[in-house]
Amino acid sequence: MIVVTTPHATEHDIEAIIKFLTEHGFDIHRSTGVQHTVIGAIGVQPDFDHRQVELLPGVAEVVRISDPYKLASRAFREEGTVIPIGSVEVGRDPVVVMAGPCSVESEEQIHIIAKRVKAAGATVLRGGAFKPRTSPYAFQGLGEEGLTFMRQAADAHGLAVITEVMDRSQIDMVERYSDILQVGARNMQNYTFLRDLGKASKPVMLKRGLSATIEEWLMSAEYILSGGNHNVMLCERGIRTFEPSTRNTMDIGAIPLVKKRSHLPIIADPSHGIGLRDKVIPMARAAVAAGADGIMVEVHHDPDHAKSDGAQSLFPDQFEQLMREVKIIAEAIGRRIA
Amino acid sequence: MIVVTTPHATEHDIEAIIKFLTEHGFDIHRSTGVQHTVIGAIGVQPDFDHRQVELLPGVAEVVRISDPYKLASRAFREEGTVIPIGSVEVGRDPVVVMAGPCSVESEEQIHIIAKRVKAAGATVLRGGAFKPRTSPYAFQGLGEEGLTFMRQAADAHGLAVITEVMDRSQIDMVERYSDILQVGARNMQNYTFLRDLGKASKPVMLKRGLSATIEEWLMSAEYILSGGNHNVMLCERGIRTFEPSTRNTMDIGAIPLVKKRSHLPIIADPSHGIGLRDKVIPMARAAVAAGADGIMVEVHHDPDHAKSDGAQSLFPDQFEQLMREVKIIAEAIGRRIA
Amino acid sequence: MIVVTTPHATEHDIEAIIKFLTEHGFDIHRSTGVQHTVIGAIGVQPDFDHRQVELLPGVAEVVRISDPYKLASRAFREEGTVIPIGSVEVGRDPVVVMAGPCSVESEEQIHIIAKRVKAAGATVLRGGAFKPRTSPYAFQGLGEEGLTFMRQAADAHGLAVITEVMDRSQIDMVERYSDILQVGARNMQNYTFLRDLGKASKPVMLKRGLSATIEEWLMSAEYILSGGNHNVMLCERGIRTFEPSTRNTMDIGAIPLVKKRSHLPIIADPSHGIGLRDKVIPMARAAVAAGADGIMVEVHHDPDHAKSDGAQSLFPDQFEQLMREVKIIAEAIGRRIA
Amino acid sequence: MIVVTTPHATEHDIEAIIKFLTEHGFDIHRSTGVQHTVIGAIGVQPDFDHRQVELLPGVAEVVRISDPYKLASRAFREEGTVIPIGSVEVGRDPVVVMAGPCSVESEEQIHIIAKRVKAAGATVLRGGAFKPRTSPYAFQGLGEEGLTFMRQAADAHGLAVITEVMDRSQIDMVERYSDILQVGARNMQNYTFLRDLGKASKPVMLKRGLSATIEEWLMSAEYILSGGNHNVMLCERGIRTFEPSTRNTMDIGAIPLVKKRSHLPIIADPSHGIGLRDKVIPMARAAVAAGADGIMVEVHHDPDHAKSDGAQSLFPDQFEQLMREVKIIAEAIGRRIA
Repeated sequence: MIVVTTPHATEHDIEAIIKFLTEHGFDIHRSTGVQHTVIGAIGVQPDFDHRQVELLPGVAEVVRISDPYKLASRAFREEGTVIPIGSVEVGRDPVVVMAGPCSVESEEQIHIIAKRVKAAGATVLRGGAFKPRTSPYAFQGLGEEGLTFMRQAADAHGLAVITEVMDRSQIDMVERYSDILQVGARNMQNYTFLRDLGKASKPVMLKRGLSATIEEWLMSAEYILSGGNHNVMLCERGIRTFEPSTRNTMDIGAIPLVKKRSHLPIIADPSHGIGLRDKVIPMARAAVAAGADGIMVEVHHDPDHAKSDGAQSLFPDQFEQLMREVKIIAEAIGRRIA
Repeated sequence: MIVVTTPHATEHDIEAIIKFLTEHGFDIHRSTGVQHTVIGAIGVQPDFDHRQVELLPGVAEVVRISDPYKLASRAFREEGTVIPIGSVEVGRDPVVVMAGPCSVESEEQIHIIAKRVKAAGATVLRGGAFKPRTSPYAFQGLGEEGLTFMRQAADAHGLAVITEVMDRSQIDMVERYSDILQVGARNMQNYTFLRDLGKASKPVMLKRGLSATIEEWLMSAEYILSGGNHNVMLCERGIRTFEPSTRNTMDIGAIPLVKKRSHLPIIADPSHGIGLRDKVIPMARAAVAAGADGIMVEVHHDPDHAKSDGAQSLFPDQFEQLMREVKIIAEAIGRRIA
Repeated sequence: MIVVTTPHATEHDIEAIIKFLTEHGFDIHRSTGVQHTVIGAIGVQPDFDHRQVELLPGVAEVVRISDPYKLASRAFREEGTVIPIGSVEVGRDPVVVMAGPCSVESEEQIHIIAKRVKAAGATVLRGGAFKPRTSPYAFQGLGEEGLTFMRQAADAHGLAVITEVMDRSQIDMVERYSDILQVGARNMQNYTFLRDLGKASKPVMLKRGLSATIEEWLMSAEYILSGGNHNVMLCERGIRTFEPSTRNTMDIGAIPLVKKRSHLPIIADPSHGIGLRDKVIPMARAAVAAGADGIMVEVHHDPDHAKSDGAQSLFPDQFEQLMREVKIIAEAIGRRIA
Repeated sequence: MIVVTTPHATEHDIEAIIKFLTEHGFDIHRSTGVQHTVIGAIGVQPDFDHRQVELLPGVAEVVRISDPYKLASRAFREEGTVIPIGSVEVGRDPVVVMAGPCSVESEEQIHIIAKRVKAAGATVLRGGAFKPRTSPYAFQGLGEEGLTFMRQAADAHGLAVITEVMDRSQIDMVERYSDILQVGARNMQNYTFLRDLGKASKPVMLKRGLSATIEEWLMSAEYILSGGNHNVMLCERGIRTFEPSTRNTMDIGAIPLVKKRSHLPIIADPSHGIGLRDKVIPMARAAVAAGADGIMVEVHHDPDHAKSDGAQSLFPDQFEQLMREVKIIAEAIGRRIA
């Protein structure tokens, strides 16, 4: 932490600041300038709230000098993390494609879709079994039966499985069916849950919260990593902004930013990011062009009758066209589709 | 739902739209204009996603004509909800003051603070026992022991208790100690948890999510109300905006808005809303002036050594001054401090 | 500016950083730590873009150590600026009330309203003569004739005048009629215009841009101050956020923040801040409770037939009630209505 | 406009609503339902403020049924607008590349850069001659001399010119040197200026305001179009959000959205959109992949000594690599680089 004093700070103020920092366990390095005195406070105090220093007389600015996350930072691990999922590896040059319906609706539905997305080149089957919805009166998912259907469909077509785990009580069960544990945007700062995921045996895909900064997102990844689970991938799925035309604003710029700051792979979810089918394809292409390690796309064989999110699900034909396009885009930047 | 067609929509388009809506269970009322045809779709279909209609050819705009929440709306219940908490009632003219530390740190600490806030005029004691923190390495709260200390301190000084319940597994335990169950901003859209709170026997205070619209917030209240728990109060605690100077931007305008749209009482939490001690007082005054039914303020007898959020906690002297000021402000608008 | 290196920065990296800074005219102070080296770069280089340093190898973080504004900062001038406007002074204890219609519509209209707001206790008459509107087809204001009407009405009732000046070509003309030159939110970063206002002979009220941070706002005030016009007051009028229920989100927290960082008076405009008549009153009260030096409120004797912004204009009766309430609130915090 | 009443609205309320609308010149179509009455108000009243209806007793919701813009909408003109600029056409399949420095700094500088960007495949030379900066003390551009240098450099290398025009007084002068008149984000809602640009003889590129919705942006384009200048292209350059890591958040999703709603070509400016050189390349690729009709990129032969925005300017080598990549990406979606 670096503390900069105001031009008017008195020697008495400065000594009080130093005393405060020393009492809280920091080592001090003082550098006296003409206008400002700069105080370096060295040491790691997880409980310390730097706003306390901001309130001291004579303080102009307080700056943390290191990221609050460590295990998730690129500085900690220069090479990118590689996560093996079935036959593919997330985080290497090949771009991984995860596709499937929003919700598992029936055994037949998930089989039809699994077959189509596999044929088009996807390697991971997505689908939700637990769907807590904004309205208390809407379809809430098939539960564990849905997981069974999805596992069978994936196995039948040589796909891996990704599905959301809603809370700690579901971790064991979901691990039995899924290759990746998806953590939803609303759980991104559910720290007790994240801690439990740190003990899980399966890789975790952590979605960015709707109003989470990139720093907060990496801090949440840190919780999982610090629990011992090193297989964490991130997923950009849109943030909340003032623009009302789309459900969310997909922050494509987060992709190169995360790649620079962290060694963790990053996936893009354009279906949630933009929220309307006809814009999902351009956004999926954009994500690959920006350097995403994978994309996750909602596909449904009959979106008009989907029980959830039909409006943002691609028809299988559209998905096939998307695959053709992203194949070329991946090659333009020296990658390929997994 | 009202569907407006584009000027170029053909009769074929319009018939397809009507067919689609009919198949999904809506009754139709068509009104043909010179430029636009307007289709009213009557009926309640909780699973229906209006974005599906937006994607149909010839559709210019789709508008829901009723709030997605019912039990929480002022239309459902014209008179304001009144929630008895110990000797006070939240939602009547008296403005309720909840005060106390961010975290319960020790038996002594909570007694000292309880005594001070009671003397200054508070009626509810606040304090956290479970503190999942952004950093996995920081103080995490005293747990159930903290609840015991808080209950004893509150009883000793004639105060009611409000404390946060973190997840469904804690509901029973927290109900044994607390008069109000506080739901944190990060849990505002944890729907399974909200549903369980609908079965709880104690009133719930639902904090607004950092990026939640007022409609989403009322929708979350609906989950609790629809479970059978009618004693729900809301709490504005700041939203996320582009302004970096403060932790959050406190949306004071949400207070009169919620009062108009809903019959539920609304509390303001300026400590989290603004995040720096010297601005908590003006924001608490502003909340009362804007019509809040209560305020919740962090107070600590020794903020410099608080284990969490010391920087936004008032000194007891400051709290006393605040109480003197809000007393006059409440009277200016025909209310008083409870 | 302070530059913090990454843990992996080599001595070669650090020397290159220092060379870069020296070449750009900074004096250097180096402090070598175990994990990070901290480089203080001393000097003022207005053309220097600190992002250039962020791009150098081995740089973890770059921090400016002083506000980019000087003349506007509280550090520059500890006592608050006081601006005399007719018989009142903006920036002292009395809270100034500016009231009037959105647009001057006719000689009669502005006289009727001037009379009512004066009787209720306002000291400044507001009104617009030039109304560039979002729609190119809407009422665009009476122009200079409107200024004449407003000046006459103000003089007849002992009020000062505030009105908006749209661009540099209007400054001279508006100065002939108005006591305060209002700069609209859309012009907040029109720097050539601000520079010209620095030469104006009348005080300026600078509205905050819809997406301007407080720092950017003070930076814009700096432009006017640096031109030689020291009579600048600020006006908070709402910022753009994700909340769709109100036109803008009024940032009441900006009031205490600006009071701390700057010596300039701050006015609140709840009419634009919230945008709907029935919420203007609570927001005006909140602004006074939060410490605003003045409020500006739209009042119209016949809002249903106003040519602009009728929906956010108070009826005269409502304005009178508001005046009664803010009088008590001002006293609660040791102030009074001017 | 469609007005929906509340469930509790009385017949008296409904009649008052209808009377109000009739008085303001609307034709009325009433449709009485069980819960809600729906009132269609037909007619165009540019001065009418729909918030006035929201305030009437018994009104639940008010919805505009047509876009406020007409000439800019895709409904008005189904085929995309094509704008000839020198040898290229903006708005057809070929993707136009505009490149050059932030500021024209000298005759030599602009010649060197013009040569490099032409060789790499750009067709339009960008560069600023007037640079009003956030700091009143920084480099403000070469003025008209800069325009002369830029025109000469462009002619020498067979490039067209785009440069910013700051206010109405500069239109004539800039038209003499430039093939496209660029309107900056801060001027997006300067309506008197937009109106004058409607009379200009050269095409206009309108940048999106930092906090402008897509609807507001198209509304501003409407101002220019309604003045008679049909050659308007739009430019996405990043919006303001809560994320502090980047200067702005580039809204890539705006590209497919604008293409759907409007017939005007859309250009992307990743240099301002993301603000750091190492992320400009991925964002430029993403914009092309998302369907932009052109990209505008800052390139400087010596960014470390650039007088402005060096940190977001590409080295010529990087620009060449970018051109190779976007060439393939354009082909992936059936386009090519112009």
